Amino acid sequence: MNCSEIILKPIGIIHTPFKSIDDHVPIQGALSPDTEGKVVVFPEYAGGLKDLDGFSHIFLIYYFHKSKAVKLRARPYMEQTVRGMFSIRSPHRPNHIGLTVVQLLSVDNNMLQVKGLDMIDNTPLIDIKPYNPYFDAPSNVRIGWMESHFDDEKRKKNITVKSEKEWLHE
Amino acid sequence: MNCSEIILKPIGIIHTPFKSIDDHVPIQGALSPDTEGKVVVFPEYAGGLKDLDGFSHIFLIYYFHKSKAVKLRARPYMEQTVRGMFSIRSPHRPNHIGLTVVQLLSVDNNMLQVKGLDMIDNTPLIDIKPYNPYFDAPSNVRIGWMESHFDDEKRKKNITVKSEKEWLHE
Repeated sequence: MNCSEIILKPIGIIHTPFKSIDDHVPIQGALSPDTEGKVVVFPEYAGGLKDLDGFSHIFLIYYFHKSKAVKLRARPYMEQTVRGMFSIRSPHRPNHIGLTVVQLLSVDNNMLQVKGLDMIDNTPLIDIKPYNPYFDAPSNVRIGWMESHFDDEKRKKNITVKSEKEWLHE
Repeated sequence: MNCSEIILKPIGIIHTPFKSIDDHVPIQGALSPDTEGKVVVFPEYAGGLKDLDGFSHIFLIYYFHKSKAVKLRARPYMEQTVRGMFSIRSPHRPNHIGLTVVQLLSVDNNMLQVKGLDMIDNTPLIDIKPYNPYFDAPSNVRIGWMESHFDDEKRKKNITVKSEKEWLHE
């Protein structure tokens, strides 16, 4: 391997209504589709936003800057059972990288208006990628321990958006 | 913001059939669904793989270790028109982070057998996340400049898997 350490520089900041971890941050953007916010890309990268406005959805890759912990086993947000870190979407990951698909409402110079956010205000942005279901939405999917929470009949009543507070404080 | 620099450590290595950029690396894993390979997670993180085997698909987040360039405008792989970096999936991104959904075939201790790979052998792994279509597969999607390449009638014949060589050498 060529690198034992990878150094990233934030390319922007994600602004959301969640000013702190006490602020009822959603588990996932898709479960809070109306949460609107703004992505400010640093001006030196604005040229890279050309053509993005044709896409209705984008991946935001970002840094969980509020999490300092690494927990290889943790209780996921939807249940009490302790699970392996790589089977859940907790911020307490070895590299603290977050991934959310959001709806792109508009692009104005270096500012994106987006919907479906699930991160804390001022989260450092690492990358933006266009979402394309031909690349990113496989079929015949099994979702392991999450299955029971998304049973077609149950899922609407079972998935509630609570605070991430307890989780982050754990 | 709390961090002007983010330091990551690889958590494993992705082994693929593509030994170099001359080796016909696919554009996207979904376009080369039968490309099989192995993800070796470093033993110290193996505990985090618990429960992952219930998922049929996972996100691999990795480092484009062969790309040193940053190109805010570039020709995407599917056409000749120069596009904004954040509207394409090129490796020459400010933070050189890659994202691919792969099919998970098996988990054996710290080794994952996967299908649908599109990166070069020995790519450093940064994170693994479980894929859940309720989080990660929005509906009513528009895909901007990519639309014409995925027209339902055309897409099977238009999308061919070529070498990434020219692109990486650009």
